[in-house]
Amino acid sequence: MSGPLIVWVLGSDSDLPHIEDGLRVLEELDLPHEVRILSAHRTPDEVDELSRKAREQGVRVLIGVAGGAAHLPGVLAARTTLPVIGVPIPTDLAGGLDSLLSIVQMPGGIPVATVSAGKAGGRNAALLAASILGVADEGVAARLDRLRTSMRQKVLTRDREKGRRLGAG
Amino acid sequence: MSGPLIVWVLGSDSDLPHIEDGLRVLEELDLPHEVRILSAHRTPDEVDELSRKAREQGVRVLIGVAGGAAHLPGVLAARTTLPVIGVPIPTDLAGGLDSLLSIVQMPGGIPVATVSAGKAGGRNAALLAASILGVADEGVAARLDRLRTSMRQKVLTRDREKGRRLGAG
Amino acid sequence: MSGPLIVWVLGSDSDLPHIEDGLRVLEELDLPHEVRILSAHRTPDEVDELSRKAREQGVRVLIGVAGGAAHLPGVLAARTTLPVIGVPIPTDLAGGLDSLLSIVQMPGGIPVATVSAGKAGGRNAALLAASILGVADEGVAARLDRLRTSMRQKVLTRDREKGRRLGAG
Amino acid sequence: MSGPLIVWVLGSDSDLPHIEDGLRVLEELDLPHEVRILSAHRTPDEVDELSRKAREQGVRVLIGVAGGAAHLPGVLAARTTLPVIGVPIPTDLAGGLDSLLSIVQMPGGIPVATVSAGKAGGRNAALLAASILGVADEGVAARLDRLRTSMRQKVLTRDREKGRRLGAG
Amino acid sequence: MSGPLIVWVLGSDSDLPHIEDGLRVLEELDLPHEVRILSAHRTPDEVDELSRKAREQGVRVLIGVAGGAAHLPGVLAARTTLPVIGVPIPTDLAGGLDSLLSIVQMPGGIPVATVSAGKAGGRNAALLAASILGVADEGVAARLDRLRTSMRQKVLTRDREKGRRLGAG
Amino acid sequence: MSGPLIVWVLGSDSDLPHIEDGLRVLEELDLPHEVRILSAHRTPDEVDELSRKAREQGVRVLIGVAGGAAHLPGVLAARTTLPVIGVPIPTDLAGGLDSLLSIVQMPGGIPVATVSAGKAGGRNAALLAASILGVADEGVAARLDRLRTSMRQKVLTRDREKGRRLGAG
Amino acid sequence: MSGPLIVWVLGSDSDLPHIEDGLRVLEELDLPHEVRILSAHRTPDEVDELSRKAREQGVRVLIGVAGGAAHLPGVLAARTTLPVIGVPIPTDLAGGLDSLLSIVQMPGGIPVATVSAGKAGGRNAALLAASILGVADEGVAARLDRLRTSMRQKVLTRDREKGRRLGAG
Amino acid sequence: MSGPLIVWVLGSDSDLPHIEDGLRVLEELDLPHEVRILSAHRTPDEVDELSRKAREQGVRVLIGVAGGAAHLPGVLAARTTLPVIGVPIPTDLAGGLDSLLSIVQMPGGIPVATVSAGKAGGRNAALLAASILGVADEGVAARLDRLRTSMRQKVLTRDREKGRRLGAG
Repeated sequence: MSGPLIVWVLGSDSDLPHIEDGLRVLEELDLPHEVRILSAHRTPDEVDELSRKAREQGVRVLIGVAGGAAHLPGVLAARTTLPVIGVPIPTDLAGGLDSLLSIVQMPGGIPVATVSAGKAGGRNAALLAASILGVADEGVAARLDRLRTSMRQKVLTRDREKGRRLGAG
Repeated sequence: MSGPLIVWVLGSDSDLPHIEDGLRVLEELDLPHEVRILSAHRTPDEVDELSRKAREQGVRVLIGVAGGAAHLPGVLAARTTLPVIGVPIPTDLAGGLDSLLSIVQMPGGIPVATVSAGKAGGRNAALLAASILGVADEGVAARLDRLRTSMRQKVLTRDREKGRRLGAG
Repeated sequence: MSGPLIVWVLGSDSDLPHIEDGLRVLEELDLPHEVRILSAHRTPDEVDELSRKAREQGVRVLIGVAGGAAHLPGVLAARTTLPVIGVPIPTDLAGGLDSLLSIVQMPGGIPVATVSAGKAGGRNAALLAASILGVADEGVAARLDRLRTSMRQKVLTRDREKGRRLGAG
Repeated sequence: MSGPLIVWVLGSDSDLPHIEDGLRVLEELDLPHEVRILSAHRTPDEVDELSRKAREQGVRVLIGVAGGAAHLPGVLAARTTLPVIGVPIPTDLAGGLDSLLSIVQMPGGIPVATVSAGKAGGRNAALLAASILGVADEGVAARLDRLRTSMRQKVLTRDREKGRRLGAG
Repeated sequence: MSGPLIVWVLGSDSDLPHIEDGLRVLEELDLPHEVRILSAHRTPDEVDELSRKAREQGVRVLIGVAGGAAHLPGVLAARTTLPVIGVPIPTDLAGGLDSLLSIVQMPGGIPVATVSAGKAGGRNAALLAASILGVADEGVAARLDRLRTSMRQKVLTRDREKGRRLGAG
Repeated sequence: MSGPLIVWVLGSDSDLPHIEDGLRVLEELDLPHEVRILSAHRTPDEVDELSRKAREQGVRVLIGVAGGAAHLPGVLAARTTLPVIGVPIPTDLAGGLDSLLSIVQMPGGIPVATVSAGKAGGRNAALLAASILGVADEGVAARLDRLRTSMRQKVLTRDREKGRRLGAG
Repeated sequence: MSGPLIVWVLGSDSDLPHIEDGLRVLEELDLPHEVRILSAHRTPDEVDELSRKAREQGVRVLIGVAGGAAHLPGVLAARTTLPVIGVPIPTDLAGGLDSLLSIVQMPGGIPVATVSAGKAGGRNAALLAASILGVADEGVAARLDRLRTSMRQKVLTRDREKGRRLGAG
Repeated sequence: MSGPLIVWVLGSDSDLPHIEDGLRVLEELDLPHEVRILSAHRTPDEVDELSRKAREQGVRVLIGVAGGAAHLPGVLAARTTLPVIGVPIPTDLAGGLDSLLSIVQMPGGIPVATVSAGKAGGRNAALLAASILGVADEGVAARLDRLRTSMRQKVLTRDREKGRRLGAG
């Protein structure tokens, strides 16, 4: 199968900056993915078709990115039993709390795997998608473990450089 | 056309008590209406078909009633340009604030006319639907005015009976 | 009748930027409208008179735009049975959540059709007003449907231009 | 002048229990007062007339008691320059936070003196009204000081009876 | 008595800009007033003494201005039965909601007359103080009425200049 | 491998009722699972060991269930790259909003797949875990699809029984 | 010195049930303590005296317990440099979020060590007080460590009894 | 013992500006301290080791500084019975309310002494740590009292310079 394993769906292209970190993570992990700009309310038929056909086209994880009423991840989840990840985008009204609640408070039966609102969200969506693929793919799991180790090293480096120790000058 | 002018769509039959007052209002105003139990996430195709065909079947106003992620009113609005009213149902997480924000914070282009959360919501959805029909139907407008007058009388009666005036006791 | 079908009432002229998109929508849809600057608290008599006489002067929908205590839409609704739409304006205290709650939480009997807070609100108020007029006016409904189709096209164009597809370069 | 110095206006007679403590305070302080049941939205003309004529009829303080959209205190304040006190009534949606914000967030120019939401509100509205009258009436101020002293004594008694001291048991 | 009738107490001189409008109102109304910078927590003795002696020194209204834990207005109210007005200052944590709740949610027995958070607060505190003095001073009441009329004229002027009427140009 | 594929970790046995529906779902789907009662703060070593060894013991998904500070899911995620699902438990302070925010707002790098707070959460955690296993296991995916179909049928049955149609009564 | 090391100050005796667990902890740890019922607003002089004299009387930690405006812990902290712990009591308005913010958001310079709102708060206040005493008293530190070990054992026992293991049963 | 008495642990070096005021306070009070950059989720082992060995290495107070899920202070507290202070860092989602709730809402048994979110937090953490050391060290207590006196003088100076007195201008 040569299609994408992961498909990001954004309600608006103005949300692209929120997923840049996430796209970089998927490239580092060498996981084929696509980005679509589709609105749950303005292009409902295209969203429906995408989620309905995703599994048969080889997609393994869908990521819906949306703000405000933020119905997109839930609408994706309504027509597939693939894992759907939701990324809440900040808003002026309530800092993104409205987006978060709209995405996470799904009724019993149709889960959306919700990650952090704000900047960390796009990155965490990518890592969660990878960890899902890593359940059955040891190569992905191994690459994730290496990424985790390198994150740890970065923190320890910053601790040495920016921390302050007694007698350290 | 002998079908309903107004269709209520409830995400769950457990929400029926929230619209009882509203159903009574529509009966008093003699406006034909129906109640459907359909979920935006568990029965997405039925919800789509209902909203897509509503106008040609003579429906004039849709009312979506939902709690939590509460996508139902927005999903109805995505496939019709009829007015869609949203009624937020209280939740344990945030008293209904989550439902309210999910319903009202629609993106530019797809409005949902949101009314009160909680007990007043069902009644106000019915009255708003009637006021929309009253824009072009003077008979409905006249019945609404009479209802308004009778509400006023009820308050004034309660003022006489329950208020306290100096020298009145 | 040559007067406006829709009247916007703003609590302050500083709220004018929030309705610019909405005014443009009404012009595209060729719906006659007016904008008034009136305060529920500083000019209560003028607000009362406006709402009381609206129906007999041919107005079909009132739109109240207000922030903070945001009583304006409710005060308009108290003296007419025409549909009243409420647009919450953001505030510093709570991002507009205060405005939203003051507008939407109307008591049973006097509905206000509340739309999105923030930028999308003005546009959605205009579209909701148009959809209300479209209930009885097929010409308006047809123009609304065309607008909806053009919104859909814009999203699909952005998907082609800004989305990323595998093998697409 | 033999009329009331203080007039309570309640949006609904179901709010009467919230002001019982407050009525008792006014009786203890021997301040003539009345209670009216009037709705800002269902009986707007009666509310307007009441606030417009209040000063000339000898009223010195108005107290508006309301929940949800809670426009009543602000509507009273729009037509008088007498001090208007607002008492927020709890709601299911947000525990009364919606009522509180609707009452307190008045625009510059029209203040409402807002007191505690919930049980303490009625009592504090009465005491605030008395302290306002006490500005110019030394007798009222003296009675308020005595009430304050007796409150202090009650706390100290409870400290002796319910507190726990080392070596006291 | 030649001292101030109204004393503002600010927890920090960084809050001075929030009361500028209010100071101007008091000057327009010709009401003698003072501004003190005192902290409920850093200078508790000075705050106590100020509130304890206020009535005997001819002060008639105290205004406490504070943000965050915002105990100042309540601490003033604990040692006087004069009316105490509280002005919540915005914060980064919760936009001022924390300040508002700390000021308004006083226990039964010790009211604080809370006004708008944010910019409108300082102005409304001054107007509320004036309306309290106007209860017994007809001259103040008359000046307040004139101010109210001029506010009304300003809104109507803006309506003529910034509103849009059909056929108007 | 004969161990569990899914391990639930609960901060307290008082949270067991919140996952009953979820346990039933896993039994219906025939997915081996275990339930552990371990606290991130009172038994940190046991939690660490569990998450560190999970992958090598054949576990494929961890589910952390917690309320309040609700660190458990994040602490599990800190020592594994398996997918970790977080279920927020309602609290008295903020209805579960505190639990939700503590679980979902993970820093970039360590995602937790957060599902609904309250009753729907346990059920959705189970379904999300199953959908993750279904990525690579067609049998699980097929069973999930059947469950989805049966949920749809239940809604349609309720629509027939509890809905109200014109001419149907 | 034979006086109490720890003094609890409660704004109202109705808050006593919230500290029962905490009192039991202090008895288990054999730390002398007292409970006072004093209100920051109704008995300000007694509160001042208590905090001002606390250090010289041998007190080492003060614990203020309060709800709503909840100024008590901050008022205690204003007149002593002993550590002051604050326990927020739940309220109807905002579940205790108001109490929490009033206690924790102290201005720079006067810290209050705030612990959990609700049931866990009283217990955690006692344990925090003990850990403060344990900084300089090895006996207290050792007793705290034993208590920690016994908490851990209780969780592990519940894991054995209430958890579910594959093949266990 | 020549090691630090107080150790700050920051989840990220981007939080360093929030503790600058606090570091200055500790230097003024001449209390040896260190700053570490360690993440509860990315370097869990280093965090565990630090808190587990803190007491035996002579540390007396730990301060955890974190935003968002903000588990760091609680994770520190899980492995020591030393007092742990938590400083919530502001976030975009909810201004820091999420950080605050994650830190303060610890389960019964494991307290975290939470201080102000935002700018005042770092300063207050330092002062609280000093007041804890001052319980057993009279020299520290005396230095704290002097700092308190100088804060008081600063406020009184600002009152003289920035306040406005009648007849003073």
